[in-house]
Amino acid sequence: MDTALTYAETHADQFVDELKTLLRIPSVSTDSAYDDEVERAAAWLADHLDGIGMEHTEIIATDGHPLVYAEHITDPAKPTVVVYGHYDVQPPDPLEEWDTDPFEPAQHDGNLYARGACDDKGQMFMHVKAAEAYLSAEGDLPVNLKYIIEGEEESGSMAMGAYVQSNGSRLGGDVVLISDTAMFSPDTPSITYGLRGLAYAEITLRGPNRDLHSGNFGGAVDNPCNALSRILAGLHDDDHRITIPGFYDDVQDLTEAERKTYAELPFDEQSWRDALDINAVRTEGDYTTLECLSARPTLDVNGIWGGYTDEGAKTVLPSRAHAKLSMRLVPDQQVEDVYDKLEAHLEAAVPDTMQFSMRRLHGGDPVLVDRSAPPMQAAKTAMGEVRGTEPVFVRNGGTIPVVADFQQHLGLDSVLMGFGLDSDAIHSPNEHFGLDRFQQGIQAIIRFHNHYAEMEA
Amino acid sequence: MDTALTYAETHADQFVDELKTLLRIPSVSTDSAYDDEVERAAAWLADHLDGIGMEHTEIIATDGHPLVYAEHITDPAKPTVVVYGHYDVQPPDPLEEWDTDPFEPAQHDGNLYARGACDDKGQMFMHVKAAEAYLSAEGDLPVNLKYIIEGEEESGSMAMGAYVQSNGSRLGGDVVLISDTAMFSPDTPSITYGLRGLAYAEITLRGPNRDLHSGNFGGAVDNPCNALSRILAGLHDDDHRITIPGFYDDVQDLTEAERKTYAELPFDEQSWRDALDINAVRTEGDYTTLECLSARPTLDVNGIWGGYTDEGAKTVLPSRAHAKLSMRLVPDQQVEDVYDKLEAHLEAAVPDTMQFSMRRLHGGDPVLVDRSAPPMQAAKTAMGEVRGTEPVFVRNGGTIPVVADFQQHLGLDSVLMGFGLDSDAIHSPNEHFGLDRFQQGIQAIIRFHNHYAEMEA
Repeated sequence: MDTALTYAETHADQFVDELKTLLRIPSVSTDSAYDDEVERAAAWLADHLDGIGMEHTEIIATDGHPLVYAEHITDPAKPTVVVYGHYDVQPPDPLEEWDTDPFEPAQHDGNLYARGACDDKGQMFMHVKAAEAYLSAEGDLPVNLKYIIEGEEESGSMAMGAYVQSNGSRLGGDVVLISDTAMFSPDTPSITYGLRGLAYAEITLRGPNRDLHSGNFGGAVDNPCNALSRILAGLHDDDHRITIPGFYDDVQDLTEAERKTYAELPFDEQSWRDALDINAVRTEGDYTTLECLSARPTLDVNGIWGGYTDEGAKTVLPSRAHAKLSMRLVPDQQVEDVYDKLEAHLEAAVPDTMQFSMRRLHGGDPVLVDRSAPPMQAAKTAMGEVRGTEPVFVRNGGTIPVVADFQQHLGLDSVLMGFGLDSDAIHSPNEHFGLDRFQQGIQAIIRFHNHYAEMEA
Repeated sequence: MDTALTYAETHADQFVDELKTLLRIPSVSTDSAYDDEVERAAAWLADHLDGIGMEHTEIIATDGHPLVYAEHITDPAKPTVVVYGHYDVQPPDPLEEWDTDPFEPAQHDGNLYARGACDDKGQMFMHVKAAEAYLSAEGDLPVNLKYIIEGEEESGSMAMGAYVQSNGSRLGGDVVLISDTAMFSPDTPSITYGLRGLAYAEITLRGPNRDLHSGNFGGAVDNPCNALSRILAGLHDDDHRITIPGFYDDVQDLTEAERKTYAELPFDEQSWRDALDINAVRTEGDYTTLECLSARPTLDVNGIWGGYTDEGAKTVLPSRAHAKLSMRLVPDQQVEDVYDKLEAHLEAAVPDTMQFSMRRLHGGDPVLVDRSAPPMQAAKTAMGEVRGTEPVFVRNGGTIPVVADFQQHLGLDSVLMGFGLDSDAIHSPNEHFGLDRFQQGIQAIIRFHNHYAEMEA
């Protein structure tokens, strides 16, 4: 292990340069205009995995974007770690709010700025470099290693979910290791034991069959923008609880022990609000801000549009209005059940002046992992050694759909050892990743493989 | 008069060809990208007015788009008709819903399809051709004639309003004649005696200072799209009355006589709904559909936008959400007073999680005209002769801001003799104008000048 750690230190600059090359490929999976770029990122990654000495590397075609698979089987008797990550990224818009080109990495103040710098190209690439350190410095790995890196995490992980469901033997192993989450704070290394799920829908209201003049038709023809506002406003009550009937039926409430852990986390709410420049939060009932951010379900409008949205004043009564809305789910809510409840509720809420349609865009079930399992403890030790302080176990408000798939279809728990920070601006303009955390991540992964192999020996 | 009527009939094809030339100029006044085209339309029109024999033609520069002025003073003892119209047009979007190019006129099935074909290039041009018929066929006009044609009617008539306010002597006359309204139905020629006013605003809500990941921040950070929906939904009650305090204070309610006239209009509500493909209307309290369309005030969202609106699913909690919203006003509501009430109400409704701003984009006061005045009766006679059926006096739900300006600053009432139809799709894709109505309009205007001169002789 020690020579691998040294190798990673002495090759730090090379690793950053290689990551920049990957970041220059705009592999935006949610927009088909970027399809060729997504393919190019997959090809680059497979080639790179081959180059560091993985025994077998393969680009697996799917109905969507390809999966990149690589393996190195040191010894069937050793534990097998399945590394999951994704090489696709969120769209870069709004482009005008970036200080630099989102696809031309800018390195300054110890950070690397680019779309995907943290989520997830940067964090995924730490795992590639940890393996390279072992293979180049020591000629072998303390564990068997399989990589499965997908290109659709930001657009629903459809192909990945299907692959996990149908290719159990190939992805067989003992644990999944993932770096796609954030630390609780810059000084609080964290291992995530819970993830929220997601149900993301797009809805359309159609009123009149064409855009109308608001003077000639306003006052009697119902307006789909107004109607959509009424429907969306009705999805929460005054306590910010979601009004969809049955929505909370399957929600596991927080235990007293969990609430105590939440209360002990070093959370400075005022500073957190200041960083966002908000004067107040909007939380559900009596739950704390932190609890609402990761252990309670949500409903957010992710996008809304209708009518005239350009310069000036067009007096139109629009034909249609649209919204993208998503719910973050917590155990034991299930995606399809929540979609059904949403759709039934919306259909009942739509006035007789409107026609309604809804599309289910993508979803993922929520997850909780047993904190006492050996790989969770190995991760805790590895991270603690690198950071010099004991990591905490936390729940995360985000969603990694495939983590639920690994659990449901392969019986594999996931160790979510993340090095992001909330301030990294993932999904936002000026996304970045600290180069110190990039290096610490590689070191922690090298240590994890060693500790986990020893615990299972 | 008779030779002028004959001239108009025999030159019908030439008139249509000339109108097409004007329609090819995309004089969209609400979007600065079209500024040069607006200037080009003004120049073409001034040149054309000069060509038909107006004594004096002038392009009047303003802070915005130019005014086109022309006059022909036959005899100071005769009545002076001020013809008002506009050469600017609405934006053509959504472009994909047009069957033909909005700025390449298509003539078929007796209609001319183009942006502005009806509103208002087509209707304004009828007045130019009526004067040409008199001047070419008879060498003179029965009235003194002044044209004032503006280029900002679709974007607030700021320059026109200022000009009317400050140039009373130049625009002095006896009546304003305007064709920028619709007939009640294809078989019901109409003269409009009432117009609604308009107060059009754009509002912005800002929550967090940047777009956020909906997983990491959703559940505690209030979402501006959700907040905007709550605020907009709160602007109407269940009876579809507007909830802004004091909003109805200055509304003149309909008289029993007016309600009776409304009830007698040949309105087939089922056919009207079928044409719009709507199953139901949303009207205020006990008012009828027709009453709500023209004699009651409204509040419509003309545009709404925020967050991610492109293909796919972006899990963003947006920083900002926006809406354009406008209120149609009825006598005696006043634009600035209503703006003040709206802004005060919105400021009170904005939650402490949001920052709010509002811009007043453009407005116009409502108008009512005395139906018994000589020019109104001259218009009734002229239209009746052309159409073979007596026209009705109606109120119109739209707004022509300058009509209130003519009344307030010059003491001039306006005769609104319109030849549009609700089905002409003004402000919508596939706007068109019936060539029969284009010709009837010219004939009616020729007759109006004659009858009005005789009544005032």
